[in-house]
Amino acid sequence: MSSTPPRVTAVDTYDIRFPTSRELDGSDAMNPDPDYSAAYVVLRTDDPDGHQGHGFTFTIGRGNDVQVAAIRALSHHVVGRPLDALCADPGSLNRDLIGDSQLRWLGPEKGVMHMAIGAVVNAAWDLAAKRAAKPLWRLLAEADPEWLVSQVDFRYIADALTPEEALDLLKAGRQGATDRTARLVERGYPGYTTSPGWLGYSDEKLTRLARQAVADGFTQIKLKVGADLDDDIRRCRTARAVVGPDIRMAIDANQRWNVGDAVQWTNALAEFEPYWVEEPTSPDDILGHALIRRGVAPVKVATGEHVQNRVVFKQLLQAGAIDILQIDAARVGGVNENLAILLLAAKFGVPVCPHAGGVGLCELVQHLSMFDFVALSGTTEDRVIEYVDHLHEHFVDPVVVRQGHYAAPTAPGFSATMHASSIAEFTYPDGEFWVKDLATTAPESTQAPESTEQNGAAA
Amino acid sequence: MSSTPPRVTAVDTYDIRFPTSRELDGSDAMNPDPDYSAAYVVLRTDDPDGHQGHGFTFTIGRGNDVQVAAIRALSHHVVGRPLDALCADPGSLNRDLIGDSQLRWLGPEKGVMHMAIGAVVNAAWDLAAKRAAKPLWRLLAEADPEWLVSQVDFRYIADALTPEEALDLLKAGRQGATDRTARLVERGYPGYTTSPGWLGYSDEKLTRLARQAVADGFTQIKLKVGADLDDDIRRCRTARAVVGPDIRMAIDANQRWNVGDAVQWTNALAEFEPYWVEEPTSPDDILGHALIRRGVAPVKVATGEHVQNRVVFKQLLQAGAIDILQIDAARVGGVNENLAILLLAAKFGVPVCPHAGGVGLCELVQHLSMFDFVALSGTTEDRVIEYVDHLHEHFVDPVVVRQGHYAAPTAPGFSATMHASSIAEFTYPDGEFWVKDLATTAPESTQAPESTEQNGAAA
Repeated sequence: MSSTPPRVTAVDTYDIRFPTSRELDGSDAMNPDPDYSAAYVVLRTDDPDGHQGHGFTFTIGRGNDVQVAAIRALSHHVVGRPLDALCADPGSLNRDLIGDSQLRWLGPEKGVMHMAIGAVVNAAWDLAAKRAAKPLWRLLAEADPEWLVSQVDFRYIADALTPEEALDLLKAGRQGATDRTARLVERGYPGYTTSPGWLGYSDEKLTRLARQAVADGFTQIKLKVGADLDDDIRRCRTARAVVGPDIRMAIDANQRWNVGDAVQWTNALAEFEPYWVEEPTSPDDILGHALIRRGVAPVKVATGEHVQNRVVFKQLLQAGAIDILQIDAARVGGVNENLAILLLAAKFGVPVCPHAGGVGLCELVQHLSMFDFVALSGTTEDRVIEYVDHLHEHFVDPVVVRQGHYAAPTAPGFSATMHASSIAEFTYPDGEFWVKDLATTAPESTQAPESTEQNGAAA
Repeated sequence: MSSTPPRVTAVDTYDIRFPTSRELDGSDAMNPDPDYSAAYVVLRTDDPDGHQGHGFTFTIGRGNDVQVAAIRALSHHVVGRPLDALCADPGSLNRDLIGDSQLRWLGPEKGVMHMAIGAVVNAAWDLAAKRAAKPLWRLLAEADPEWLVSQVDFRYIADALTPEEALDLLKAGRQGATDRTARLVERGYPGYTTSPGWLGYSDEKLTRLARQAVADGFTQIKLKVGADLDDDIRRCRTARAVVGPDIRMAIDANQRWNVGDAVQWTNALAEFEPYWVEEPTSPDDILGHALIRRGVAPVKVATGEHVQNRVVFKQLLQAGAIDILQIDAARVGGVNENLAILLLAAKFGVPVCPHAGGVGLCELVQHLSMFDFVALSGTTEDRVIEYVDHLHEHFVDPVVVRQGHYAAPTAPGFSATMHASSIAEFTYPDGEFWVKDLATTAPESTQAPESTEQNGAAA
């Protein structure tokens, strides 16, 4: 036990990869063979209570090592920080990471470097919530509105949302929060499931999983589309027949189309009454989404899992380009930027339906939606969190989904902590699983064999 | 000499950093202390004539190792490719790199991974031009229009530019190309200089360098602004007094402002008649640029050095958000994507004034503007290539600027090849310069000391 105030002592990184491509889990029109992976980071501390901050970037295999390198490039901003100051103001870390002028050149605020910032910032919030002995959703929901506003970077969004407007929204959101907390704890937050709809699944598996989804209490499912129109028509017909007219059915093209194709293809599936069409084109194409939205109504347009930052979300809202805003907990710069995005969505009155699945994305993003319900938007109407039943067993506090609802987490933190045994087994290429696997198979599905990247090293 | 067709035998990468921050060269409102750097790649071959392909991503110091890791992650797509097929169709490599479904998750088509693709694709074009014994501008300008169209990825831009429209533009651009080639070879391509205007320079240095710029034959200079309005007013007044009313003076805020600030600040400098205001806000803010353009006219709005891809350029043009489009040779996915962007600019009738400077950016981008002049837009009116007199001595075929004009390169290739001695000296942290430097100074200006990145290793 040190007599100096506790600090971050090290930033450890891990290249963790799960061989999901073997089962075609997660297969869609753009991602035929993902190996769900995490560039995982642990903020080690000398906190007398032993708390550490966990975070990660989700990737789908190759390039996870690049993401790990990016996280390491940030570590000098973190090591040595006093925990009290860091946890009292995670926004200070966020500002320093975003503001590193040399690293900023590699974005700015997008792609590999920005996701690395998100991993580190989220790890700081995990640490803050653990030290506060609260699940993150509750820490945020009970926080002072002025303090929440101080956690938001208004640069580049002030033309759409001022700090004063943000404060008003958060103060209004506080009304009735106690009742909503009680409702959330009692009933959970509604989810929807993508498990039936992966492109690589047979019609038989689609039918079986769609039926199971309804039996499990979900009121919405999602199907991947965009590779072949005849296949999509058959699969949508099959799914609609199984779930009946009252279950919402979303379709997801994973950026497969040009603007014109998106309109035509979606309208060709309109008879099956898709609730929303997701990622119809490039996530960068704000004006394209606006055109598509006008061309496919009443089918709603949703996007966000690949939207790089608050600046693009701002414009999607300003341009009236989306009906549904899909935050992702690990794509943007972490909790601070997602606060900005939730506030923008609230300002524009657009419902937030988070992207999840992958590795640990459900675990993270549930906290953000639950905060939004309790203390910002105040409603779950037309709001659902994506749910995919993959890889939860690797987390110490996995999501609990009952009757189609996410149960409110009770454990302190951001639910980001992975089991040490999982890290040990699936670290690439030196974990037990990969050592065995690489000895028997060609490694090309996840990584060029000549990589010299070290895994699990402290930085 | 092998009896099999020649191939790419290895992808070598180098982390090269120049200590430019010591002189405040390159200092602006967002980048106070850049160490100009290159994540450098060499496609090694067994070409009987010994040709190799050189390319790089420009960075400003920290994170250059992340960029090197990203280039390495692409190497399995390149090693083993037959050179004849690669050089006959660099677009095939471009498609494979962009289309890697696992790596795509880290973008898509933006930031670190996309710049890595640009470095590798540009190296392939360097190789193709060397094997064709032509400077790249001439290879492109003399290429068959149908073939050029085949090199463009129309995904996500077809709503603004179809392959048929691109072909028409290129066929029209071919008319008079022989005459324009002769004019280009005789007179060169106009440039402008940013050398006087770095924020870190004293008024005396600004005055001296602005006077020198006019004496050197430049008809446009550029000043960095955005840190302090009073300073900017004084510096603009000083520069305008030195250069007189007939020299164009651009100002560059390097993304410093919100939308409202950009309008106010630019208008506060209007009395000094800036020709354009560059990067007034986030490069992601298409709608913001459109607002700014309406608010600052007749001052023109320019952006592009941080614009991530053709999808964002497309929208900047569709939204009428810019007067000047600033391509960068090493920010987007390489020559193929810059062909798309030049075609978009030609379609919308917006002049292209490339970003350059840094390390080697002048060397690369001159080829693109010269192709555009000879065989696409057909004009240099209101078009200038940025010029900064830094670090050219490290290149085997450095740019030659006379009387404010870039001389047309004559050496085969993309002018990307760095001297082996420069690579050896400035490779970080094991090159001679850095070994000596790191022994005497704290390393924090360029890199966290705990980095384990290896440099110069073959991947």
